[in-house]
Amino acid sequence: MTAGPAQAGRRRQLSFNLLDMSTVSHNNYGLWQHPANTKWRYNTPGFWPEFARICERARFDALFTADILGIAEGYGGSRDIALREGMHVPINDPMIPVAAMAAATSHIGFAITISTSYEMPFGLARRMSSLDHLSRGRIGFNIVTSYLPNAAENFGVPPGLLNHDERYDRADEFMEVCYKLWEASWREDAVVRDAGNNIYVDPGRVRRIDHVGKYFSVAGPHLCEPSPQRTPVLFQAGASGRGKQFAGTHAEVVFVGGRSVDAIRQNVRDVRAEALAHGRDPDDIRVLVGCTLIAAHTREAAKALQDDYQAMTRPDGYVAHMFGSGTDLKRYGTDELIADIVRRGGPGTAHLANYPYLPGTTVGDIIEAAGRISDHLGLFACGTGADVADRVEEWADAMDVDGFLLRQLTTPGTVVDFTNYIMPELQRRGRYRREYEASTLRGNIFGYPRIAESHPAARFRGK
Amino acid sequence: MTAGPAQAGRRRQLSFNLLDMSTVSHNNYGLWQHPANTKWRYNTPGFWPEFARICERARFDALFTADILGIAEGYGGSRDIALREGMHVPINDPMIPVAAMAAATSHIGFAITISTSYEMPFGLARRMSSLDHLSRGRIGFNIVTSYLPNAAENFGVPPGLLNHDERYDRADEFMEVCYKLWEASWREDAVVRDAGNNIYVDPGRVRRIDHVGKYFSVAGPHLCEPSPQRTPVLFQAGASGRGKQFAGTHAEVVFVGGRSVDAIRQNVRDVRAEALAHGRDPDDIRVLVGCTLIAAHTREAAKALQDDYQAMTRPDGYVAHMFGSGTDLKRYGTDELIADIVRRGGPGTAHLANYPYLPGTTVGDIIEAAGRISDHLGLFACGTGADVADRVEEWADAMDVDGFLLRQLTTPGTVVDFTNYIMPELQRRGRYRREYEASTLRGNIFGYPRIAESHPAARFRGK
Repeated sequence: MTAGPAQAGRRRQLSFNLLDMSTVSHNNYGLWQHPANTKWRYNTPGFWPEFARICERARFDALFTADILGIAEGYGGSRDIALREGMHVPINDPMIPVAAMAAATSHIGFAITISTSYEMPFGLARRMSSLDHLSRGRIGFNIVTSYLPNAAENFGVPPGLLNHDERYDRADEFMEVCYKLWEASWREDAVVRDAGNNIYVDPGRVRRIDHVGKYFSVAGPHLCEPSPQRTPVLFQAGASGRGKQFAGTHAEVVFVGGRSVDAIRQNVRDVRAEALAHGRDPDDIRVLVGCTLIAAHTREAAKALQDDYQAMTRPDGYVAHMFGSGTDLKRYGTDELIADIVRRGGPGTAHLANYPYLPGTTVGDIIEAAGRISDHLGLFACGTGADVADRVEEWADAMDVDGFLLRQLTTPGTVVDFTNYIMPELQRRGRYRREYEASTLRGNIFGYPRIAESHPAARFRGK
Repeated sequence: MTAGPAQAGRRRQLSFNLLDMSTVSHNNYGLWQHPANTKWRYNTPGFWPEFARICERARFDALFTADILGIAEGYGGSRDIALREGMHVPINDPMIPVAAMAAATSHIGFAITISTSYEMPFGLARRMSSLDHLSRGRIGFNIVTSYLPNAAENFGVPPGLLNHDERYDRADEFMEVCYKLWEASWREDAVVRDAGNNIYVDPGRVRRIDHVGKYFSVAGPHLCEPSPQRTPVLFQAGASGRGKQFAGTHAEVVFVGGRSVDAIRQNVRDVRAEALAHGRDPDDIRVLVGCTLIAAHTREAAKALQDDYQAMTRPDGYVAHMFGSGTDLKRYGTDELIADIVRRGGPGTAHLANYPYLPGTTVGDIIEAAGRISDHLGLFACGTGADVADRVEEWADAMDVDGFLLRQLTTPGTVVDFTNYIMPELQRRGRYRREYEASTLRGNIFGYPRIAESHPAARFRGK
């Protein structure tokens, strides 16, 4: 989107991103069973390129792929629920489908989740630059630090070695290494391609970064020539205090959660304040919130779809997803208050503290809500295109968000229904793009291709 | 290829693989300047899918992508020559173009070079399985251990920490972890997709690997369901004694070098003997040798092409490539014998010892040969399709090799000329496939999709 700075009350063009994962079930547990859901084809060759073209017709900023590096074992104390539900497992590496989707499309962006806890920055920076080249600048990097104990075990990190705040410290340094490789190592004019004199690169315009820090030692030079965006668009979802601070420092697009309009509005305010406190220009940050939308040609048809999806939805996967890091809600009585469990502390409750519960929420409330698609994931609307567009506009204006992260119930049903019913209505109201404005992801979100001057990565530019 | 066991003298169907790299110049230094060479497009979106389809028409077993993780600084004592020549830099990560190429093709395989020294096996195993799924079983893994000092610096490994033999020890354990993840973690019937009962995976059919070794600690389970090949086809080029031992243990397809037919024949014998010594079935190993082929409709036209390529070829890139790991030949007199330099030892000479020089070879001989395309890389043929096919048949029969790794002079010229002139001639003689025999890479090479019983990976199968 090319809208101006965030200002409450101003009618801005909204952006939509699609939430996805290279797995069978993500935020729609039980719905893999629906005959109209083709997501079981996630590991077949034709699926992703075809789906990316469907998403491009919806004019999404980006197809956003979540990721995990271990299996959630929190709920029920084992990996059984995750496996049975196909909840994030089996899963493929997100970069592989993105590379295939980029080749099949021309404008939609791809935001890829990468854990800074288990990657080395040199290799990751090269993979991201490679994707940015081969997509002509349509790559985003969703920065996560990984919380699953099983992920730590898979990379030989003893449980508890990297605690929550240390993971963010490592992520800060990881990003600094990447910024140096992306922004500082190659001058824009380094590739001279002087065929008469057999000079492909001018060696004087490429330099080492010689980074030596607490977690990483990286010499450089970067191995890729400057890509269209250099630094990919940086996405982040930080719910904790340290997470919001990290987002305020690094993220260009921030996801915020919250189980009520008021809670979300407060989180949006916090993120914008953090960014300001870090010297960022408010115009260089976009805030998104998740939503679930069901639309059809009549209210009755939409309600019938909702009932249909509801009938196949199972709460187990949702609860296991939300509490994947060791908080086994099966160990508590359904009447116990989440606030009490957090206050007492114990294994996994640090993550539980980040769950956006309201005062008075009990274990039973969470499990019950998890089984209702109208409720379990926050913002929900169902109706005609106009009904849904009304809700979307209300939310955006009430919460001061710039756009949405759309959750899928069926694939490609959610996207197709968005394109047929919701998109035309938002376009008529002047609140959604009719065509992509630019050819890079950052161009489509912000109107410029390279990271903003107010971002810390820009400090390394031309240095 | 579906040929039977290697037997000297038997006329077998031959295989061809294409040697490539996700960079502008690889084994054809100076030739990026040729107007017919489109390789400078290596970092643009359309290039790789289009090129993969051209390669598929050539019926190659695989497009083989070399890789490096640092810049060669040996020759001249700095990275200047590498950058000026575009010698392996700038370079993109090989997995990204392979993912796009796999989506654009249906039969050709893709062998990807990965360093076991700077990757973690859990993440790499997942990426490989993801590629194997999305290509429907057409992925190969070329196992390397990385020798460039700059690569070590990029991953925070102090120079000399992992010496040559230790790199192979780490690679052995790396492969063991991968075998456990690929072969032992998921039962073939683990994904039940029982829609009536909401069971996607049967949890009892997926297990951890709980690997604890000297270099790695990896819990598992693997995150991907079983892919068509499970273990990708394993490629390796080990020239040293430890390298040949590693190849004998792990490799299904082995590249051998040598600067004469006799030297290559001896290396082929050594590799086959190593494999036998490790209990491998000789029928489960294929040996390839590199070659440079120029073909046209007449001998004169082929010679004119050779002269044309020769005129743009520069020796610097070749010398810098061959001696990238610290042996600075510029420090020695052109009359000095390579054997003497190796005998005296010193920085980088361990790698030099692996260079297949003949007794009496001097520094000047190497530099001079590097500038001749008919000589610098071993086997070379130039002529009509029939001329070249004659030489190819002679080589295969004299050296007991199963096929070739074709080097490129121009892209896609080398492949197009192979397809138009050499392929039809070999097909007429019954020594090259007319159509792919199978849909997986291993199927096309060996006639079966999963790794052979005699391979050490098979020990973990069903365990």
